[in-house]
Amino acid sequence: MMIYFTRPLNRGTLRPMILPITTSAVHPYPEQSLVMHNLDLDYYYHLGLNSGLDLKSNFGDVKYVLMCGSPVRAYEIIQRVMQAFNIQLPIGQTLAPIGKTERYSMFKIGPIISISYGMGKPSASIMLHEITKLLSAAGVLDPVYIQVGTSGGVGIEGGTVVISNALVNDLLQPYHSIAVLGKIIDRPAKVDLDLCKQLYDVRGEIPAIMGITMSTNDFYEGQARIDGAICDYTMEDKLKFLKYANDAGVRNIEMEAGCCAAFCTRLNIRCAIVCVTYLNRLHGDRISAAPQQLTQYESNAITLVLRYIEEQLGLEPKCAI
Amino acid sequence: MMIYFTRPLNRGTLRPMILPITTSAVHPYPEQSLVMHNLDLDYYYHLGLNSGLDLKSNFGDVKYVLMCGSPVRAYEIIQRVMQAFNIQLPIGQTLAPIGKTERYSMFKIGPIISISYGMGKPSASIMLHEITKLLSAAGVLDPVYIQVGTSGGVGIEGGTVVISNALVNDLLQPYHSIAVLGKIIDRPAKVDLDLCKQLYDVRGEIPAIMGITMSTNDFYEGQARIDGAICDYTMEDKLKFLKYANDAGVRNIEMEAGCCAAFCTRLNIRCAIVCVTYLNRLHGDRISAAPQQLTQYESNAITLVLRYIEEQLGLEPKCAI
Repeated sequence: MMIYFTRPLNRGTLRPMILPITTSAVHPYPEQSLVMHNLDLDYYYHLGLNSGLDLKSNFGDVKYVLMCGSPVRAYEIIQRVMQAFNIQLPIGQTLAPIGKTERYSMFKIGPIISISYGMGKPSASIMLHEITKLLSAAGVLDPVYIQVGTSGGVGIEGGTVVISNALVNDLLQPYHSIAVLGKIIDRPAKVDLDLCKQLYDVRGEIPAIMGITMSTNDFYEGQARIDGAICDYTMEDKLKFLKYANDAGVRNIEMEAGCCAAFCTRLNIRCAIVCVTYLNRLHGDRISAAPQQLTQYESNAITLVLRYIEEQLGLEPKCAI
Repeated sequence: MMIYFTRPLNRGTLRPMILPITTSAVHPYPEQSLVMHNLDLDYYYHLGLNSGLDLKSNFGDVKYVLMCGSPVRAYEIIQRVMQAFNIQLPIGQTLAPIGKTERYSMFKIGPIISISYGMGKPSASIMLHEITKLLSAAGVLDPVYIQVGTSGGVGIEGGTVVISNALVNDLLQPYHSIAVLGKIIDRPAKVDLDLCKQLYDVRGEIPAIMGITMSTNDFYEGQARIDGAICDYTMEDKLKFLKYANDAGVRNIEMEAGCCAAFCTRLNIRCAIVCVTYLNRLHGDRISAAPQQLTQYESNAITLVLRYIEEQLGLEPKCAI
C-alpha cells in the first residue's frame, strides 16, 4: 500500500489517504515474538516494531519527529525536550529506547519523537519509510519532521545554525536521485518554507541563517576533503569547488537532508532541516573550535527547534541557549 | 595525503606508498583528550581514534578486516572468531569495543578486526576511509577486507551464501558512482577473484554459490519492495525488474558491497563480499524462515569466512556450521 499524509492548505479536515496497489498484502519480516504468517501485520523491521502493537494509544499523539544522526544525539535531544518542558519522570523511572537499538534509536516524550537515522541517505531512507508507516498506522495526522543535524559550513563561521530554504545534491541540483526498477528518478527535495520561516523567527540571540544546504553521498571525496584515504585532487581544486558552491548559495554540507526533504515532499509531510555548522570549510577541513564550543553549537540547533515547538504548543517561551 | 596499499602480484616486497598532495598537512577533527593544533596528528573521527595512539603495536598485526552492518553482528563475529580459534581471555577480562561506538563498533582479536559499517554506501565509505588510514599508519601491508553481510536472494533460496564474483549498481552497471567536486566518477567495483575462489573452495556442506551482487542505495523502492511508505509501481513491475536482474546474473541484493569493492579496487586492497540470503525475493518481500533458521543462515556466512582464515593461517580446519 502507499500511504499519504494529506494536509490541505487550509489545515482544515485532515485525513490519511491509503492507496492499496496490490490485491493481497505483502509483508517483509517476521518478529520472533509474533505468530508467523499473519498477513494483517506490517513490520517496521529496522525499528524492531510492528503494527501488532497498540500504535494508536502509544504513538497517536505524535506531532513532531526530531531526526539526527547518532543514537547519542537522539538521547541528548529527548533529554533537552524533558528539560525544556519541565518534564520529570516519577522516581525510579527513566527513559528507554523504543524498539530495538541495533540500527536506530528512538525515544518519545508526549508529542515529540527523537530518532536517529545513522549516516547517509540510504540509512536515513529506511528510517523514514518505517517511522512514517508506523505513524500513519497510529493515525497521526500532519506530523512535522525536523532534521536537527550537524554540518560543515561553506563561507559562514562555525556555530551558525543553517535553516535550509533549499536543498541541492552533490551536483548542485535540487533533487534527490534514486534508482527505482533500474531507472533514475529525480525526486524534488523541498522544505516547507512556512515552517522554515517560523523556525528562523524564533532564533533570538542564536546565530542562524536561512540558506541552501548541499546534501552529499560521501564524507571525504564527496565533500572535497583532502584528508581521506583517497584524494585525487589538489587543495586548489577543492577550494575552487567549495567557492563555486558558495557562490551558488550553498551555506552548508551534510549527508541526509536531501533524502529527508525529498521523502517528505513526496508524501506531503511538513519538513525542515536545521543543521549547525562545526567549521567554515573554506578555511580548512579541521575543526578549530574547542570541544565545549562544539557542544554549545549543537545545543543551539536543538534550542532553536525547541523554541519553535514551545511556540506551536502555546507554551511560555523559556528555552534558553 | 593519499595512501595506497601496494601489493605486487608476486606477493614479494610489500610497501605502503604515501603520496603527499599538499605541502601542509590538513587534519579534520580534534579529540577532547588531545592537545589541539597538533598538525602531525591524523583523526579517524568517526572511529574515535587518532594517529597519536601507538597504532603500530596495537594494530600492526592486522591481516583480516571483517565488515558487517550492525554493531550486534560485529560483536557476534568476533565471538565466533574466539570460538573458532579457541581463544579464551583470562578470567576477569572481556572483549571491549575499540574507540567510540557512536557511529561504528570495532573489535579485534589477534590479526582479525570485526567492524560494523552501518547501512548504505555513504555510511560504509566513512568507515572504509578511516580504518584504511588507520591500518596504513599502523604499517599494515596487504590486508584482506571481507564483507560478511546479509542480503535478499534473487532466484536462489534463502540460506544460500553468495560469494560475489562481480558487483553491479542499481542500474546493473559494474560501477560505484560518486560525485567528486561536482562530477560523477564511475569507479569500477571489482572483487579479488582469487580470494573469491579460495572462499568458495572451503564451503564444504554450506550452501554457497558465486554470483553477481546488486548493490543499491535504497532498501524499499531501490530494491523493488512493495511494502515501503512510497511505492509507485505494481507487483508485476517489481517481478519484471527482479527477473530481468536475475537473467543478467544477479543472485542477491544488498546496500554496501559496491562501495566496499570500489574503494578496495581503487586502493589495491584484496576484497571479498560474502552475503547470506534471507529469502528469495522472486517469491515475496517477506521472510518465511523461522528466527532460528535465520540465525543459522547468518552463521553459515561467518563459518565460511572463518574456514578460509583458518586455512590461510595454516591452522587445522575445525570451524563447523
